[in-house]
Amino acid sequence: MESKEFEEHGAEMLHYVTSYLDSIGSRRALPDVQPGFMKGMIPDKAPDTPDSWEDVLKDVERVVMPGVTHWQSPKFFAYFPTASSYPSMLADVLCNAIGCIGFTWASCPSCTELEVLMMDWLGQMLQLPDTFLFSGPGKGGGVIQGTASEATLMCLLSARTLFFKKEQKKNPDYTLGQLVDKLVAYCSDQAHSSVERAGLIGAVRMRKLETDEKGSLRGPALQEAILEDKAKGFIPFFVVATSGTTTSCAFDNLKELGPICQEHGVWMHIDAAYAGSSFICPEFRPLLDGVEYAMSFNFNPHKWLKVMFDCSTLWVQNTDYLRYAFDVDPLYLKHENQGVMPDFRHWQIPLGRKFRSLKIWFVLRLYGRQKLQEAIRKDVRLAHEFEALVKTDDRFEITAEVILGLVCFRLKGEDATSERLLRDVNNDGRIHLVPSHMKGKFFLRLAMCGPSLQSQDIVYAWDVIKDVADHVLNSHKAKQ
Amino acid sequence: MESKEFEEHGAEMLHYVTSYLDSIGSRRALPDVQPGFMKGMIPDKAPDTPDSWEDVLKDVERVVMPGVTHWQSPKFFAYFPTASSYPSMLADVLCNAIGCIGFTWASCPSCTELEVLMMDWLGQMLQLPDTFLFSGPGKGGGVIQGTASEATLMCLLSARTLFFKKEQKKNPDYTLGQLVDKLVAYCSDQAHSSVERAGLIGAVRMRKLETDEKGSLRGPALQEAILEDKAKGFIPFFVVATSGTTTSCAFDNLKELGPICQEHGVWMHIDAAYAGSSFICPEFRPLLDGVEYAMSFNFNPHKWLKVMFDCSTLWVQNTDYLRYAFDVDPLYLKHENQGVMPDFRHWQIPLGRKFRSLKIWFVLRLYGRQKLQEAIRKDVRLAHEFEALVKTDDRFEITAEVILGLVCFRLKGEDATSERLLRDVNNDGRIHLVPSHMKGKFFLRLAMCGPSLQSQDIVYAWDVIKDVADHVLNSHKAKQ
Repeated sequence: MESKEFEEHGAEMLHYVTSYLDSIGSRRALPDVQPGFMKGMIPDKAPDTPDSWEDVLKDVERVVMPGVTHWQSPKFFAYFPTASSYPSMLADVLCNAIGCIGFTWASCPSCTELEVLMMDWLGQMLQLPDTFLFSGPGKGGGVIQGTASEATLMCLLSARTLFFKKEQKKNPDYTLGQLVDKLVAYCSDQAHSSVERAGLIGAVRMRKLETDEKGSLRGPALQEAILEDKAKGFIPFFVVATSGTTTSCAFDNLKELGPICQEHGVWMHIDAAYAGSSFICPEFRPLLDGVEYAMSFNFNPHKWLKVMFDCSTLWVQNTDYLRYAFDVDPLYLKHENQGVMPDFRHWQIPLGRKFRSLKIWFVLRLYGRQKLQEAIRKDVRLAHEFEALVKTDDRFEITAEVILGLVCFRLKGEDATSERLLRDVNNDGRIHLVPSHMKGKFFLRLAMCGPSLQSQDIVYAWDVIKDVADHVLNSHKAKQ
Repeated sequence: MESKEFEEHGAEMLHYVTSYLDSIGSRRALPDVQPGFMKGMIPDKAPDTPDSWEDVLKDVERVVMPGVTHWQSPKFFAYFPTASSYPSMLADVLCNAIGCIGFTWASCPSCTELEVLMMDWLGQMLQLPDTFLFSGPGKGGGVIQGTASEATLMCLLSARTLFFKKEQKKNPDYTLGQLVDKLVAYCSDQAHSSVERAGLIGAVRMRKLETDEKGSLRGPALQEAILEDKAKGFIPFFVVATSGTTTSCAFDNLKELGPICQEHGVWMHIDAAYAGSSFICPEFRPLLDGVEYAMSFNFNPHKWLKVMFDCSTLWVQNTDYLRYAFDVDPLYLKHENQGVMPDFRHWQIPLGRKFRSLKIWFVLRLYGRQKLQEAIRKDVRLAHEFEALVKTDDRFEITAEVILGLVCFRLKGEDATSERLLRDVNNDGRIHLVPSHMKGKFFLRLAMCGPSLQSQDIVYAWDVIKDVADHVLNSHKAKQ
């Protein structure tokens, strides 16, 4: 494909994209296909000679679209939102054209420098303490990770190295194996599965602590666990506090947990993957109070801030801890200016990295802070609208306080009824939801996802749910 | 930005991209900027209200481009190539528009199913044994990883779990700490830094074994190391064989290493990050002979196969080992069709993942196998052309056999002269190279990178190098 063709086919693709997104609500959010549906729809080998562009574009609609779960649809309320925006897409086109791998400063200075500046822009928007910023007084700074999973893992491993160095100073014969058998990390019983996984990867124990009735990890639970483990000879080293759990958007109590972590010299990491974006609004920023106690803080602009996947932003108060987590420095990656600006390859799990700060830059500039705040506020308002609708119906109950853009609800009574409701809503196909489970109760999660979501979509969703609930409850009665 | 504006601005961006790429050779491949250059060129805060599209696009040229290392330039010969192609860019536009996160089959069936089919297409193109394919007789299959670093890590962790289960069967009280202190992994002293890093992350010892004079890890070195470690009570569990080292594009001897791994029940992983793409050509496929002994095989289409970053493809002979490496399964990710098709979230480090198979599909279809083979062959031919030019000059020596698209060379004599040559070539700015080091010798690496690379670019590069060498050697003589 030559440049001229690229511009032509590109224009066709851009038009396909706008047509897709403008009419996305007319498609079934959760596709009606069975596992293995695609086999047989395309040849079982790559072609020897080029297929035509027209055929490829036709096959997007014929082969791909029937099996797509439409995350950007106003009828998609599952998981959490994943960001989508035109400015971010345009930045990605540029990112691909530059096609650099920014593992060191020298491998593409702009890639590193724009990231440094964007992490400070974003940090300021969130009103992070300036000790987390490059422009701050200390060793703070931020870096773009692929996902929150990687951010948690990177911090856990950095903390592990920190403790290993500490213990080896006391006893040079101390082995990493001896250490990992003693290390204990903590998270709430509501923490994301990736937190448990970070513990498994790092080979350390990850203790899940019981939360209060709201799903929030409180100080006394952590204090008790740390003292208990210390008494047994274990070494508490890392706490993951969640701000906005996936289960129910609950918030661990940072102001209680923080001082305890400080007292025991434990690294506190905050996982605000979803909720983090809301902290650009002054009215939601108090949810982050206590962040000053954290060594590291992470959230995903690629969830709720119009910067598309993959863009998970991580700040730390002491960037040396990331940088020296692994000390691997081959000659082909050395360069003359080492040390003056960050070499981000040391700050992440993989070596390679794209020019991802471009999409933060495009989004922050082309929306501006106020429009991004408005988008957050719209979703929270819609969540409360849905909450109000649920409350009009006695058969239902809200199972968690609605704080941001997630509503958790269920049919009163046995789990089985709500399980049936969830299954039937998804089979019905007009909207798509996923379930969750907390304190022994099964419930449905309705998350504000689609970027074009309006009040009428919320009303529609509620009508579908009520309608399906009628059937579920009637057939239940009929059986009795 | 509304749909109409997106199409308009998008067309401008596409045109910017073609203009950039069509004239990329006129820019300095390695930019002439100092660390910190960008600070002060943009405001120190995000704007409150939107900036105009025109200003953003202007700033790309004003702020970003001066500090870009132009990886796609025909004057860029550093590291290894990173793929760039128009079909891949168009696929990414579509991927972004769909904006799904394909962590489970249900979260976007097409995302999983196309990946399954593309991994088989690609596997067949490489003539992988069908035990690595989904369509094969066993439990084989493949998955797209972000980078080779993650692929190596994923396999090392899977092997670690496998051995932990084995040891715990013998002794239920066995701890992971006890195990990691006993586990030993092996790689060559030429393996990529990410291999060493996988060991550090996994908390296991990674022993670097001495290679032969060609930089190839041979059977006897591995056999000796394994026997020695077993005698000491260690547990050899994992070997990373490199096919095409970053240092010099050397190949470990798979046919010698394989049977030894099999004899000792050790997981052999092949890292062919760069060289792997060449295996689609029958004449280079013998370099992969012995792959049948490997449990896992990985290469980066995002290096040399026109599929853009991030796309690192990993195949295993038993996908259960990836799947059960970590057993974390929260309710909000469960779905009705679990188990029939893969849930790729279990096969990788992060949870989130984009619809990356689209770019493999677009590239394989819009080029076809033959044109992809031609592109590989062109680069290998150009490498031999450069090799021939170097050999015309008595002052230089070739330091490694030229097998694919990398030429390693140096000025005869002390390292200092070649070090000076490298520094001066990069300061000169007409082309960009990086150095390497092997068997006590410093040398320069000239990798065929730019997708539009032609014979004339090779001649140009050689002229620059000769020119700079003249100065280096003259000033050296003048000093004596």
